[in-house]
Amino acid sequence: MKTAIGVDIGGMSIKIGFVDSEGNIKGRHSFPVDYSLKQEEIIEQLGRDINESIASSGLRKEDLSGIGIGCPGAINTKTGYCDYASNLHWENLDICGIVSKITGLPSKIGNDANVAILGEAKFGAGKNYHNIVLLTLGTGVGGGLYLNDQLFEGNEGKGGELGHVSIDINGRPCGCGRKGCFEKYASASALVADTKEKMLKVACSSMWDYCGRDIEKVDGRTAFECAKKGDKAANEVVDQYIRFLGEGILNFCNIFRPDAILLSGGLSNQKEYLTDKLEAYMKEWNYGFPCTPSVEIKIAKLGSLTGIYGAASLQLF
Amino acid sequence: MKTAIGVDIGGMSIKIGFVDSEGNIKGRHSFPVDYSLKQEEIIEQLGRDINESIASSGLRKEDLSGIGIGCPGAINTKTGYCDYASNLHWENLDICGIVSKITGLPSKIGNDANVAILGEAKFGAGKNYHNIVLLTLGTGVGGGLYLNDQLFEGNEGKGGELGHVSIDINGRPCGCGRKGCFEKYASASALVADTKEKMLKVACSSMWDYCGRDIEKVDGRTAFECAKKGDKAANEVVDQYIRFLGEGILNFCNIFRPDAILLSGGLSNQKEYLTDKLEAYMKEWNYGFPCTPSVEIKIAKLGSLTGIYGAASLQLF
Repeated sequence: MKTAIGVDIGGMSIKIGFVDSEGNIKGRHSFPVDYSLKQEEIIEQLGRDINESIASSGLRKEDLSGIGIGCPGAINTKTGYCDYASNLHWENLDICGIVSKITGLPSKIGNDANVAILGEAKFGAGKNYHNIVLLTLGTGVGGGLYLNDQLFEGNEGKGGELGHVSIDINGRPCGCGRKGCFEKYASASALVADTKEKMLKVACSSMWDYCGRDIEKVDGRTAFECAKKGDKAANEVVDQYIRFLGEGILNFCNIFRPDAILLSGGLSNQKEYLTDKLEAYMKEWNYGFPCTPSVEIKIAKLGSLTGIYGAASLQLF
Repeated sequence: MKTAIGVDIGGMSIKIGFVDSEGNIKGRHSFPVDYSLKQEEIIEQLGRDINESIASSGLRKEDLSGIGIGCPGAINTKTGYCDYASNLHWENLDICGIVSKITGLPSKIGNDANVAILGEAKFGAGKNYHNIVLLTLGTGVGGGLYLNDQLFEGNEGKGGELGHVSIDINGRPCGCGRKGCFEKYASASALVADTKEKMLKVACSSMWDYCGRDIEKVDGRTAFECAKKGDKAANEVVDQYIRFLGEGILNFCNIFRPDAILLSGGLSNQKEYLTDKLEAYMKEWNYGFPCTPSVEIKIAKLGSLTGIYGAASLQLF
């Protein structure tokens, strides 16, 4: 049985854990990161932390398959560099090179969203499926692809930008420069904007009470929770959201004909309420195309451990 | 060196050839098909024809890796059945079962568009690329995907319906039941409709002379050829077409981050005139997203042999 180290680089902290090929996690911990430090120093600190973790784990380096790393931003899987990560203020950073030099272990890196689907496919809600699309419904829409039983990342590991597929080339402007990107309709931010717009039109909606009559307190739950209680305006917001999300997913069904679509991120906390409505929408359109097998829509289940599982999987399979 | 039989089932005839792993084709021939015959009889005839071809080829059955078949319609790669092919009037037809029974050779089948990209990837314009998207710009828009150095077909082999990705969910109605499908904008049929619409608005366009003042003679060349000669209305049609095609391709770039996009079908006869304009459009949008590698746009090159090459490749690699 193989064991690998999974490293999940996040906006506040870096998480580390030892994962074996049966999915057991040991020695999991995290350390906070001061991103004002020089970028190389942060990675050197990571390398030393990994060495200490190994020393206190009782494992020998030769027992480990290597180190897998998930990192936000534009990651070049070929070179092992973080080419650019705006949130971390990193640019042209040789993550794999530094980590391998300090630890003496082989290392691989992937974009965090791409790595996440590998974790779900090997250890989570995607187990036993061969073709999976993961959508993370948060501030934006992140994507991950598991195809022909493999992680698919595209050239330089920069594919899977599923939030930046235009579903209306004359539609809402997107920060990427194009118009109508899927994430301008299906992200939590888009839902919040659509919820506020509806509230401003419908003064009697119970959504106003739900957010304490302060429109700035609207979040991704507002429309969903009020829709469940029968508010008409809230139901209209939810129905429109399901259509937007559903149309984007129908596109992915026609492209990939996947076995399963996994949803993660804040909005996936709506669980069956969300997936039941989505499945009904998808069935109405026969999963995108006549004569096609159905697609399961499921909630991702590894939660905050996805990153460690996925990163370690880069070295386990 | 392996040799396999490639079978390309088309609307008028079935083509057969022996292909070796270096790309040499021998014993290529085709026979016309009477699609009014019972569907099983046609496939039985194909099986007997294959037996005769082998007998006259000087090859022994044990020298062959097997039979690969490309077929239009909804093909189930798992069962080897053609589930449904509207143009051929076939339904629930056990193609692989019948062919293997008569020939005694293993057989595999794929949708013709999916198989085509395998031919181009192994022997044509896609050689040496690892991630390729093929778009066939004809009556509709067909798609093929070659990902991580493999043919990607999706569940039951029914993926790659790239013409049915909506680029405007409030847009032009499509025969599949949804709105705004890519093929309603980027197919030759769409270009013809857009050309006619423009001509009806611009009586002085030279496109009227090009088609002998008979609007029913407009085809996929009309706007392109008149644009090359400087006709303003024709150039507007072409620019709009490039935008439609380009936006769809930018979507595929963001999803796959491919090394190359291949174009085939009638409109690809515009060659560099088409690809130069497209590349200019794609570069303007940085191939879909900041910080990404560029994508080559190329014309497919196997032409009428694509089907035989692709089908045989199912058994060669």
